[in-house]
Amino acid sequence: MQDIQNKPCLGRDNVAESDPALNQPAGYVPPRVWTWDAPSGGQFANINRPTSGPTHNKALPVGDHPLQLYSMGTPNGVKVTILLEELLGLGHGGAEYDAWMISINAGDQFGSGFVAVNPNSKIPALVDHSLDPAVSLFESGSILFYLAEKFGEFLPTDPHGRAKTMNWLMWQMGSAPYVGGGLGHFYAYAPFKMEYPINRFAMETKRQLHVLDTHLAQHEYMAGDSYTIADIAIYPWYGNIMRDAYNCQEFLSVHEYTHLDRWVSQLAERPAVQRGRMVNRTFGGPESQLRERHQASDFETNREDMVIARGGARV
Amino acid sequence: MQDIQNKPCLGRDNVAESDPALNQPAGYVPPRVWTWDAPSGGQFANINRPTSGPTHNKALPVGDHPLQLYSMGTPNGVKVTILLEELLGLGHGGAEYDAWMISINAGDQFGSGFVAVNPNSKIPALVDHSLDPAVSLFESGSILFYLAEKFGEFLPTDPHGRAKTMNWLMWQMGSAPYVGGGLGHFYAYAPFKMEYPINRFAMETKRQLHVLDTHLAQHEYMAGDSYTIADIAIYPWYGNIMRDAYNCQEFLSVHEYTHLDRWVSQLAERPAVQRGRMVNRTFGGPESQLRERHQASDFETNREDMVIARGGARV
Repeated sequence: MQDIQNKPCLGRDNVAESDPALNQPAGYVPPRVWTWDAPSGGQFANINRPTSGPTHNKALPVGDHPLQLYSMGTPNGVKVTILLEELLGLGHGGAEYDAWMISINAGDQFGSGFVAVNPNSKIPALVDHSLDPAVSLFESGSILFYLAEKFGEFLPTDPHGRAKTMNWLMWQMGSAPYVGGGLGHFYAYAPFKMEYPINRFAMETKRQLHVLDTHLAQHEYMAGDSYTIADIAIYPWYGNIMRDAYNCQEFLSVHEYTHLDRWVSQLAERPAVQRGRMVNRTFGGPESQLRERHQASDFETNREDMVIARGGARV
Repeated sequence: MQDIQNKPCLGRDNVAESDPALNQPAGYVPPRVWTWDAPSGGQFANINRPTSGPTHNKALPVGDHPLQLYSMGTPNGVKVTILLEELLGLGHGGAEYDAWMISINAGDQFGSGFVAVNPNSKIPALVDHSLDPAVSLFESGSILFYLAEKFGEFLPTDPHGRAKTMNWLMWQMGSAPYVGGGLGHFYAYAPFKMEYPINRFAMETKRQLHVLDTHLAQHEYMAGDSYTIADIAIYPWYGNIMRDAYNCQEFLSVHEYTHLDRWVSQLAERPAVQRGRMVNRTFGGPESQLRERHQASDFETNREDMVIARGGARV
C-alpha cells in the first residue's frame, strides 16, 4: 500500500475532489476548520484528545531497582518486558526492574509524573536511575535500543548484522500502526463497521504478513541467524495477529503464513517470552497475569493473591 | 488517541459488536474471509497489493559513489537526502552519493533489484558499497541511524542526548503513519470523504502537532540544544503539514502551533535542508526539482535540461 507507507505528501496539487453524495455519511463535507465537537468514537474514545499534556497531578511510584518501567501488557509494553526477562535470563543483574501498571483506560498516562517522562502520553516508558541524572525513555523502539546497547545484547555490532536488525526494528515501528490503529481499530474497536477502511487496512496487514512470511522462509530470525531486538519488537504484534488478536484470524486467512507461524511458535517457547507476556497484563486467565512485577519470584507466587495484596483491581 | 498509538491488542474479548444498519455503507457486514475483490481505492490504488515480492525483473542502476540511494522526494525520502547534504556540508566526502529515482507511481519499487534491497518495497533504500559485501538499508529511520553512526554526526554519544534523539526518532517512525496513511489518505487521497476516519485522524494529527509545539516551546531542537537526526526525521513530515501538505492547514488550524512554526522556519533556512528537499522531487516548479543527484554541482546546473539529458520525464 504505497500511499499507506510511503505516504506521499506532495503539496496542494494532489488533493482529490469528491462528490458529496458519495461521501459517508451521504452529503458529508469536511468543515473548513476541524473542531472537537465530533470526536472519534469507539472503545477508547474517552481517552482520545486533540491536545497533549497532563490532566491531573500524580507522581510516579519508584521501586528499589535502577530500572523503573511504567507500562501495560499491550504489544508495545510486552516488547520491553520480554527484553528485560531475556537480559535477566542471561545473568545481567543490572536489568532487574520494577514494572508498574499504567492503566490507559483509567487515564494514568495523563498524570503529571508520566507526562514528565513521556510528553506523548503513551506506554511504555522507562526511567534508568543508574545514571545521574536519570535517563528517561519513551517509545518501545527507543527503549529496546537503549537496553540492547546498555547490556551489549541482541543488537549485533558488526555493520551487516546491525543494519539488518535496525532495518527490521524500524520496519516494525512504521508498519504496526496500520495493524493496530488501522485494522484493529476499524475491524474490532470502532462503534460501527466501515467497508472502505476495513478493506484498506486488511490489505495492508496481509501485505505485511506476507513480507514477514517470505523473509522467515529464508531466515531463522528477522536479522538472520541470531535472535535480536527486531524479533522482540515484531513478535508481540504479529504473533498476536497470528493467534488471537481482534478475532481476525479467519478474516485474514493467517493459516497461509506458514513460515511466520513457525517463527511465532518458536519464540512462544522461550521462557523469557512467556514471562514477559505476563507482566502488566490485564486480560486472559488469572494464571496469565502478573499485574506488577518487582522481583523474579513474583512469577512464582499466586498472582491473584498478589493482585489483591498490592491493592490492584482485576480487570 | 490511545487506541491509535498504544493500539491495545488484547485478544478476542475486546471485539465490539455493531448494528449492520449503522455500518457504512448501511448493511455492510465484513465477510468471514477477506478477499481482494474489493480493493481499497484512491489515488494510489493501483500500487496497493495484499502480497509482497517483485512484479518484474529490473536491476538497479549503480553510480560511481559508495552510497547509492534509491528514493523519491516524499517526506521519507527527503529525510535521507537532508542528512546526506548535511554530512557533505560538514566535509564528509564519504557521504557523496548517487540518488536514483524510484517512481512509486510507476511501480519501480516492485522491480526485482529494488525488492532484493528492500523486501518491503518502500522508498527510501540505500546501499553502502564501501563495505564488502555491501550493506543494504531500508526504512528511513534505519538509514538515518546508520549514516549518523557511520559518520559520527547528529546522534550524540552521551547517554542522555542519545536517548533523547532516539526517543524522538522512534516517535516520528510510529506517529507519522497516522498523519500520512491516516489523515493524508482520508482527507486528501481517498476517492470519497468519510467523516469518521477524517475526524479520527484529524484529532490524532492535532495531538501530535501539540506534542511537538509544547516540546519546542522549551527546546531549540527536538533533542535539546543540538540538531540531530530526530529533527531531520520530523521536519519533512510536520514541516509539510505546517506549510502545504494535503491543503489541510486551515482545517487543522496550524497557526496555533507557533513554537513548531518557529522551528520549521529555522530548519527551512539550512542550506542542506534546501538541497535535500530538491533531490528526487517530482512536484512543484522546475527550479525546485533535481530528479536525480550524482554530484554536488548538479544543484547548480539547469535542472530542466538535466532531466532531459538523463532521459527522465518531467512529472
